[in-house]
Amino acid sequence: MHSTSSFVSAITNDIAKIKSKRPLIHNITNFVVMNTTANALLSLGASPIMAHAIEELPDLISIANALVVNIGTLDQQWINSFSTAMHLANKNNVPVILDPVGAGASQLRSQTALDLLSQNSVAVIRANASEIIALNKMHRSAKGVDSTDDSKAALDSAIQLSKRFQCTVVVSGKTDYCVHDEMIIAIENGSSLMCSVTGMGCIATAIIGAFLGINSSSFESSINAMACTGICGEIAAKNSDGPGSFMPIFLDTLYHLDAELISSQLNLNICDYQHA
Amino acid sequence: MHSTSSFVSAITNDIAKIKSKRPLIHNITNFVVMNTTANALLSLGASPIMAHAIEELPDLISIANALVVNIGTLDQQWINSFSTAMHLANKNNVPVILDPVGAGASQLRSQTALDLLSQNSVAVIRANASEIIALNKMHRSAKGVDSTDDSKAALDSAIQLSKRFQCTVVVSGKTDYCVHDEMIIAIENGSSLMCSVTGMGCIATAIIGAFLGINSSSFESSINAMACTGICGEIAAKNSDGPGSFMPIFLDTLYHLDAELISSQLNLNICDYQHA
Amino acid sequence: MHSTSSFVSAITNDIAKIKSKRPLIHNITNFVVMNTTANALLSLGASPIMAHAIEELPDLISIANALVVNIGTLDQQWINSFSTAMHLANKNNVPVILDPVGAGASQLRSQTALDLLSQNSVAVIRANASEIIALNKMHRSAKGVDSTDDSKAALDSAIQLSKRFQCTVVVSGKTDYCVHDEMIIAIENGSSLMCSVTGMGCIATAIIGAFLGINSSSFESSINAMACTGICGEIAAKNSDGPGSFMPIFLDTLYHLDAELISSQLNLNICDYQHA
Repeated sequence: MHSTSSFVSAITNDIAKIKSKRPLIHNITNFVVMNTTANALLSLGASPIMAHAIEELPDLISIANALVVNIGTLDQQWINSFSTAMHLANKNNVPVILDPVGAGASQLRSQTALDLLSQNSVAVIRANASEIIALNKMHRSAKGVDSTDDSKAALDSAIQLSKRFQCTVVVSGKTDYCVHDEMIIAIENGSSLMCSVTGMGCIATAIIGAFLGINSSSFESSINAMACTGICGEIAAKNSDGPGSFMPIFLDTLYHLDAELISSQLNLNICDYQHA
Repeated sequence: MHSTSSFVSAITNDIAKIKSKRPLIHNITNFVVMNTTANALLSLGASPIMAHAIEELPDLISIANALVVNIGTLDQQWINSFSTAMHLANKNNVPVILDPVGAGASQLRSQTALDLLSQNSVAVIRANASEIIALNKMHRSAKGVDSTDDSKAALDSAIQLSKRFQCTVVVSGKTDYCVHDEMIIAIENGSSLMCSVTGMGCIATAIIGAFLGINSSSFESSINAMACTGICGEIAAKNSDGPGSFMPIFLDTLYHLDAELISSQLNLNICDYQHA
Repeated sequence: MHSTSSFVSAITNDIAKIKSKRPLIHNITNFVVMNTTANALLSLGASPIMAHAIEELPDLISIANALVVNIGTLDQQWINSFSTAMHLANKNNVPVILDPVGAGASQLRSQTALDLLSQNSVAVIRANASEIIALNKMHRSAKGVDSTDDSKAALDSAIQLSKRFQCTVVVSGKTDYCVHDEMIIAIENGSSLMCSVTGMGCIATAIIGAFLGINSSSFESSINAMACTGICGEIAAKNSDGPGSFMPIFLDTLYHLDAELISSQLNLNICDYQHA
């Protein structure tokens, strides 16, 4: 299929496209990560907008290049915004990325995510392993919004969700898996320090949006985004003194990310996975 | 009662417990500090969740190890969430920490804080001096959400509130006082630079939550949290160039905080205070 | 009129006043920038409060020294808060600064900004070029909340808005223009890196509020604030490795900003502009 070097040039080319086209990424996301998400999108070269008022969604979605829906601090008002925005995005052929934060931690989160998926088309779902498993099994897990690191355990669920909702599914963890039907790419970049920084998953989701804003392939955009997030996270972890100094370095690295760095760091494998 | 070295080992042991048990701290807090609060909890080793939707509070509070309620950017919807969450926490024996941000600055804030305290049990109230005095006297002060540094002036009020609401009261300022009935511990760590960084008080409140998530003593948890916040703030102030570089270093220090650092920095005294 | 050195002492004197008087700046602003805005105000020496509940606005506006209204993540509830707060501010002679984020990107934003301006007096409008043009022409632009850098193209619109609403208008961009009727001051400080950091415009708006909290001249306060923001941004861009390390250095620089730094950096010109 591809050699690693072909992935490097694909990623590099798409970063260049983001910087020149500055795709407008519409985010309806949670209060915790709005600032860092906007900064990550800007650092990569995309143009973020955060807006949730139903009244302005028709105007804004019509000029957006991608829609990122993150249910992190949901309530009934925001659920209405998610739903309206996704409906409009589908109508306008704007690709949608869904981050079902905390699916499994509450019935409201699991049900909201599944309702949004049943009533709208999405290009990509990105979540951690426990969220993916919960979404597939519709059962409750016992541990808030944080995840087990065991992304592999969620692979069967990811494949099933990908088939059921006809979309790419990204399971992030120690290894990040990008799943499209039965094609699986595993990315081994990143660092455990990223689990001590809030919103790194949400940032990855938004970065998928940036790539989808200039590349219509949901699978390629997911791979590109997870590679960039993982590589920058790994570099930032190496060069920081802890989770506080991590974020400034992560954003600086994302801003300067180029073929040389990607090529020296990328640890990507095509998976040969036999599910049960 | 205790020597300083017994405090050092108590704090160190409880930090180790937080790192191994990763208590789930449910925060209903203000928009300004959600990101930094989540990062502080993660840096210490706890697992934060921010959620306010009434519909999911029963699911989430039932798995939480502590509930932090911070009224910083309150409105009627959020007041309903505070109230529902505290009621559920009481029912589930989840300890509650209340941060009555801006009590005294508006009638709404003073009344909301007092209503929450009258209708629910809390383990800890943490506030600055003007908020504590306002809460006790129910009179308006004239200076927004910032405080006088004169935490000592609030000691009588703190003792009265502690008795009235059967909880630990923490008054933060140049000296941080942890008050439980008539027992008072004074912590002299910290730095004036912390007043130039938004949300340091809110972070202290959340960190009390982290300790309460693994230790049922509200007094010990308050002492441990204020010691950690003060020590990390002091180190960060010393090693930063101002309020901007303070926060990354604060979080890094919290992440690495160990017995050696605590033991070399802790400035804690048992108070012999005769109130009027 | 003035020499540059008279501007330097005017700015320096007003910074000293902010540090000694600690004006209370009431912000009703967007979720993305609440944290960084509060930190910028604290770094300069002002005292920020973020609050939007209608019920407490009478109490809070009565003790505020300036009101900053930023429509960035507006919805109907927040529009009601903007409107109530501005009405109260006018009644209490509290100066109002309006940041019409995204005017032109949606009908809701353009209409909200114009309604607020028609129904209330403001001291200053600060916006980017496309927002100013949209506000003046009431037509839709095609590019979200980000701006063209071509602030000069908006000068005619700025002059017309200044006359129509009897206020100072600041157009920020590569050059920042402070416009009052037909007087124009151009500030050439700043850095293009500031476009890769979210909320730098919102921070500038809030800093105008800090100066207006201690100086009743809307024109002088706007000049002072844009000079400080530009100078600190320029220094931070020079000393950082990218948009992530920018913000800590920006805040540190704002905290330490003094006559020497201002005098060595300030690039301010009185414009002789003939509009069509």
